[in-house]
Amino acid sequence: MHVYIDGTGLTKFGKSNLDLKSLLVEAGKKALNQSRYPEPDAVFVGAMNPEEFTETGNISTLTVDALGLSGIPSIRVETASSSGAAVFSVAFTAVASGIFRNVLVIAGEKMTHLPTSRVTKILAEVIETQERESGATMPALAAMITKAYMNRYKISSDKMEYILSSIALKNHFNGSLNPYAQFQKRITLKEYKESKMIAEPLRLYDCSPITDGAAALVLTRERTDIRVAGIGQGTDTLALRHRDSITHFMATRIAAKTAYEMGGLKPRDINFAEVHDAFTSFEIINSEDLGFFEEGRGWEAVVDGVTHIDGPFPINPSGGLKSRGHPVGASGLAQIVETIRQMRGEVDSKCQVGKTDIALTHSIGGIGNNNFVVILERVRERIKPTRKTAGYNLPIHITRIKGPHDQEIKVNETEGFIETFTTLHVTPEGFPSPLILGLVKLKEQNTRIIARAMFLGKYKIGERVKVEREDNLYLFRKENITEKVKYYFRSITRKLLKHIR
Amino acid sequence: MHVYIDGTGLTKFGKSNLDLKSLLVEAGKKALNQSRYPEPDAVFVGAMNPEEFTETGNISTLTVDALGLSGIPSIRVETASSSGAAVFSVAFTAVASGIFRNVLVIAGEKMTHLPTSRVTKILAEVIETQERESGATMPALAAMITKAYMNRYKISSDKMEYILSSIALKNHFNGSLNPYAQFQKRITLKEYKESKMIAEPLRLYDCSPITDGAAALVLTRERTDIRVAGIGQGTDTLALRHRDSITHFMATRIAAKTAYEMGGLKPRDINFAEVHDAFTSFEIINSEDLGFFEEGRGWEAVVDGVTHIDGPFPINPSGGLKSRGHPVGASGLAQIVETIRQMRGEVDSKCQVGKTDIALTHSIGGIGNNNFVVILERVRERIKPTRKTAGYNLPIHITRIKGPHDQEIKVNETEGFIETFTTLHVTPEGFPSPLILGLVKLKEQNTRIIARAMFLGKYKIGERVKVEREDNLYLFRKENITEKVKYYFRSITRKLLKHIR
Repeated sequence: MHVYIDGTGLTKFGKSNLDLKSLLVEAGKKALNQSRYPEPDAVFVGAMNPEEFTETGNISTLTVDALGLSGIPSIRVETASSSGAAVFSVAFTAVASGIFRNVLVIAGEKMTHLPTSRVTKILAEVIETQERESGATMPALAAMITKAYMNRYKISSDKMEYILSSIALKNHFNGSLNPYAQFQKRITLKEYKESKMIAEPLRLYDCSPITDGAAALVLTRERTDIRVAGIGQGTDTLALRHRDSITHFMATRIAAKTAYEMGGLKPRDINFAEVHDAFTSFEIINSEDLGFFEEGRGWEAVVDGVTHIDGPFPINPSGGLKSRGHPVGASGLAQIVETIRQMRGEVDSKCQVGKTDIALTHSIGGIGNNNFVVILERVRERIKPTRKTAGYNLPIHITRIKGPHDQEIKVNETEGFIETFTTLHVTPEGFPSPLILGLVKLKEQNTRIIARAMFLGKYKIGERVKVEREDNLYLFRKENITEKVKYYFRSITRKLLKHIR
Repeated sequence: MHVYIDGTGLTKFGKSNLDLKSLLVEAGKKALNQSRYPEPDAVFVGAMNPEEFTETGNISTLTVDALGLSGIPSIRVETASSSGAAVFSVAFTAVASGIFRNVLVIAGEKMTHLPTSRVTKILAEVIETQERESGATMPALAAMITKAYMNRYKISSDKMEYILSSIALKNHFNGSLNPYAQFQKRITLKEYKESKMIAEPLRLYDCSPITDGAAALVLTRERTDIRVAGIGQGTDTLALRHRDSITHFMATRIAAKTAYEMGGLKPRDINFAEVHDAFTSFEIINSEDLGFFEEGRGWEAVVDGVTHIDGPFPINPSGGLKSRGHPVGASGLAQIVETIRQMRGEVDSKCQVGKTDIALTHSIGGIGNNNFVVILERVRERIKPTRKTAGYNLPIHITRIKGPHDQEIKVNETEGFIETFTTLHVTPEGFPSPLILGLVKLKEQNTRIIARAMFLGKYKIGERVKVEREDNLYLFRKENITEKVKYYFRSITRKLLKHIR
């Protein structure tokens, strides 16, 4: 059984006056209207957290009812910020099983009506508890990953600023050509450099925005012009500190391996890609994890124009999450819809990429711990006979990740070194700003902790620090701080913590 | 491809000291330990609302990580209170597609740590907005359905009390024999009659409790002793007032039809069943919707002992949601696990039912709008050759429900008659108690509304009433209330409403 894509639909992304139900219905009806199968056998709905964003539960029933399709099965699927890809994956197996013929897949999220602090709090619920309680937000963790990447591949701050700005400018340029994008304006290097620092080295223009929007498509067992060639999913530890790698996403590599093998394809077969650039630095990391470029050299592609819309290997021609916007539960499916629009020549000629035979989409859930890769291919007269696979009955590879796990820290004071860190300027409610957060590897125990710097100041990756425990929090300080200074600041810290709680 | 069930696991249901993660892990590990396939290809997690119940998102990643299985795919599935059945359904298609060989399915919910008022508020998010804002809770809607059923089949209040108490006593008796049940005690008719009235005619002992718990099982393509014979899902309108039927669940009938056809089976082939008795009256309605008994005569079975644990057709031998407990996202899967324990003879001999070749489970999402039916059969040497199906490649039936939808009510005052109503004694925060809620059919428009009685008093189904609008609320009153009395009470109502808001 092969699975094909028929009609697709998108709402305008951005700040919408519509409620979540209306967004889901708009995208769903567009997809059904564009499909030869306007009467689906089932509806699959992706959304990350409609309960908290919109005080609405039972979203799959609400959606099938609002579409006037009550009666048929409807199921909601969630994997944090990759929910749009997850619901595609579940609908894919539903059709591949032979039980369903044509199904409607919809994913959406409504976020902009809430204050940013509330949105940040809801988004932070996907972060592991201890890291969240240390003050780590999604940008904070992304920044720590970015700094570890810079350190590993010896990329200076100035150079990284240039690389990240190149991605922001490219994706904003692409978004300016996309009528569905949230930001339809180009930005300048000056604007980038003047934008607010969120978590060093990530500025506002490195972070995807808060967005409303929905995407939809019809999956069918009947042949259309586009076939799902491969699909893969991988997971990683919930906590960043438990990872084998803190510079790349193992979950992406596992997902990519499965998708490539299912499709009998290699990275060089892909013509263009939409990847999860919730943060600009992720676009580089992803392009390496997906096998497009060598480790540590993904940045060359954007600087050299390779990944530009008119380059030989366009990445995020839709504008990506950065410029198209990131309604969290919708993004994974919106990437697929945008890719199909490119493959079908439905985009404006100014943003039409060259070769569109085989494309890849990549979505990240949480801080890189529930990731998906989908490969789509244009259907020729015959599906290439050279391919190893008939249908999708490939045994998948079981890849297990066993990172270092928490060990109880028995002493009140111990030593370690900074593996990566960030200065977080936009801190969660109740936390002081700025806040220096570090991923510290302990010297005498095979364990890592997320700790706060006791004092502001200049820190370096690799620097040796002393670590202390305050209840469930860890605080680190430079080795050369005298006991006197320490106790003085410690009492202040205590007062501050007291005040915060 | 056939899909089989291998190992299963259950936690004790009730008030647990464990957090949600630990409950999911406990059930999951039990299922893996009991399985020939302790290394699953993927994990599927069912939970209704871990975000609001436990402030935890990204639950599928958290679960696969906590099980030490990071790397493999993990997806969360939700359909309100049938999430446990929905996740089973998604995992079923994943295996039936041939893409996954052995998958772990886990479902759980943690609820008892929150105050009852908070739990009630979270549960009410599955109710359609206008009905929720009128003060309708799940027990209120269930009570209205029950009263409509009584009216349709001419069952007096005294008789209904006897019928409902018979179900409560039966299910508590069954639960008293089940070590996993929340309530392991029998109740007497006196205790039943003295229990608090929640929403007339439903007492506390007619309602399933607030519960913590998790269930798990391994689905595999490799032959085991139990095969999934059929599975079906149906939906209905989100709002009760939009239904074609307010005495039965069309969603159950659709689900049952699909499951029976997929399995090539009829209701009379089933040996015993676990059905969704979130409210005792639902057990009767369900047993009719599932085709076990004639419409309006399901109550005879419990009164005559037919559905008792030692009767010819046991229903809810585990104690059901009523006595086993109802951790909302877990119940649908727990029913399947309990059924397998019966089929494998793993239950105590005192609660072992007689014939266990073919069994059915039935789960309700929301107020009967996202329902599942699963049929399990013991595998003989050969799968019966008389069956029409090989694998599950049955085209499913598309059943559409097109109930009456809302029409704008243009006048401030109109007439109608009461289709059903309840006196709600346990009202949501901010609402007066008691509150009389009615489903009122308007005289001159083909539309129904949920309205509050302007005055307390005795109402009857079929009674003609006047309806007025107050902002987004509807209020009804008896026809013979004089204008003077009306305006006096209206001003009080306004003050009350103001106070509430």
